[in-house]
Amino acid sequence: MKFASFKIENRVTWGVIQGTSAVDLGAVLNGRFADLKTLIASNGFSEAQAEIASAPSYPLQNIAWLPVVPNPDKIFCVGINYEMHRKETGRSEVEHPTIFVRFANSQTGHLTDIIRPRVSTKLDFEGELALVISKPGRYIPKDQALDYIAGFACYNDGSIRDWQSHSHQFTPGKNFPNTGSFGPWLVTPDELPNMDERTLTTRLNGQNVQQAKFAQMIFDIPTIVEYCSSFTNLAAGDVIVTGTPGGVGAKRVPPLWMKSGDIVEVEIDGIGILRNSIADEVQ
Amino acid sequence: MKFASFKIENRVTWGVIQGTSAVDLGAVLNGRFADLKTLIASNGFSEAQAEIASAPSYPLQNIAWLPVVPNPDKIFCVGINYEMHRKETGRSEVEHPTIFVRFANSQTGHLTDIIRPRVSTKLDFEGELALVISKPGRYIPKDQALDYIAGFACYNDGSIRDWQSHSHQFTPGKNFPNTGSFGPWLVTPDELPNMDERTLTTRLNGQNVQQAKFAQMIFDIPTIVEYCSSFTNLAAGDVIVTGTPGGVGAKRVPPLWMKSGDIVEVEIDGIGILRNSIADEVQ
Repeated sequence: MKFASFKIENRVTWGVIQGTSAVDLGAVLNGRFADLKTLIASNGFSEAQAEIASAPSYPLQNIAWLPVVPNPDKIFCVGINYEMHRKETGRSEVEHPTIFVRFANSQTGHLTDIIRPRVSTKLDFEGELALVISKPGRYIPKDQALDYIAGFACYNDGSIRDWQSHSHQFTPGKNFPNTGSFGPWLVTPDELPNMDERTLTTRLNGQNVQQAKFAQMIFDIPTIVEYCSSFTNLAAGDVIVTGTPGGVGAKRVPPLWMKSGDIVEVEIDGIGILRNSIADEVQ
Repeated sequence: MKFASFKIENRVTWGVIQGTSAVDLGAVLNGRFADLKTLIASNGFSEAQAEIASAPSYPLQNIAWLPVVPNPDKIFCVGINYEMHRKETGRSEVEHPTIFVRFANSQTGHLTDIIRPRVSTKLDFEGELALVISKPGRYIPKDQALDYIAGFACYNDGSIRDWQSHSHQFTPGKNFPNTGSFGPWLVTPDELPNMDERTLTTRLNGQNVQQAKFAQMIFDIPTIVEYCSSFTNLAAGDVIVTGTPGGVGAKRVPPLWMKSGDIVEVEIDGIGILRNSIADEVQ
């Protein structure tokens, strides 16, 4: 199933995407599951499925997409997790995943604008696979990691490169409002066998700018989940963004920055296409 | 006034500290202000003050202290913000504050145990001044920064040094549960004139291990608020931890690690003493 968070006529809700329709499960289950994070935390998937027939349904063009999980407690991002990206950034090999952080207020949804802030012109794309944690966990062993994943989505870890390198810590460049696009929906793992063989593609204005299979990750998904759960208590709805392949705009000659009017897409086969336009921050 | 979050008989509440008593304002104002973050966001300080006489009061020894703000949306920490600490870490000078991140679930309160996790013996202290944001703000100019500060508290930015240097990003070493101690209370700015002249002291088992005046910060408080608000929308209750002076345990010869049974204190004149014991994680 494909779960999503969205607005209908400015009402925030959540539901299931079926073909070209959004089923508004929030309308019938809001009392039990206030949002998608609560549904995940309550393991309410079969209850949700049972309500699909009775819930109102809307054409997709009538909804406004929100980040798949608009309100995660924590978002961990993995840096330098594909060899081609490690080489283009000039980073040395490390024994552990590189983990930086986004806050939820930096996120945006499918078909919204990613915002280039007034203080920079160096807005870059980073197509990535995101996973959402299904239940609380600490010291999760690799071989149990998949039991803690509620599903997968596309993520565009949009980066303000000059602010990212103001110091050795990435925080500023990774937390501008409306730079982290997360969508369109969460695909449950039962629909995604063979994740390693799936391909991620980032396109800017229709041109491929990044492409990799998940088998090319330096630290695979179970290793990342094990590692993050070693230093923090993971919670239902937490998001882990698993790193971007080579090809980022900052490392091209000349650099390729996103600008107002551009269209950027992150596609993962078996999941779908996350599409955003670029707009300048309103002065 | 001194505002705090605490438990009484396992009930989570908040209130004002007066001498050796905790006034349980949550008991009378809970409907309007569910927690201290909500009070701050609602600018409810004078309403709170008006209820002090009618609210129940408890001896301090009967309360269990919580982090001053247990549930901030965001915690930004400034690294390398005193010259002696910059030199001991071997970092070069930078033009902008170094910002890393804690999540709220890494925090603990006054008189609780800071936990040394089973996966490391390299638990270090970092005495710091924390400030709490009073209202939403973006692009806050330096000369208005003080209008956005609800108050100040002590912070011990406890660090797991080997995990902090697993990669170039500090996240893992700064997010272990029960490592970031925040307390005992929030002191409103009207009680703290001349912040620059105030002294922070960290003591381990009664011995001074860090000491500095806030005038020695490389980036002062208005600069830090301006900078953080340039890349994120600050919200009421957000916490900014302003950096640690020289003297950290990791850079001593031999290194000085905190261990079970130790007592660590962070004292700021005009604010008070944040005291924690160290305990090993239960296996």
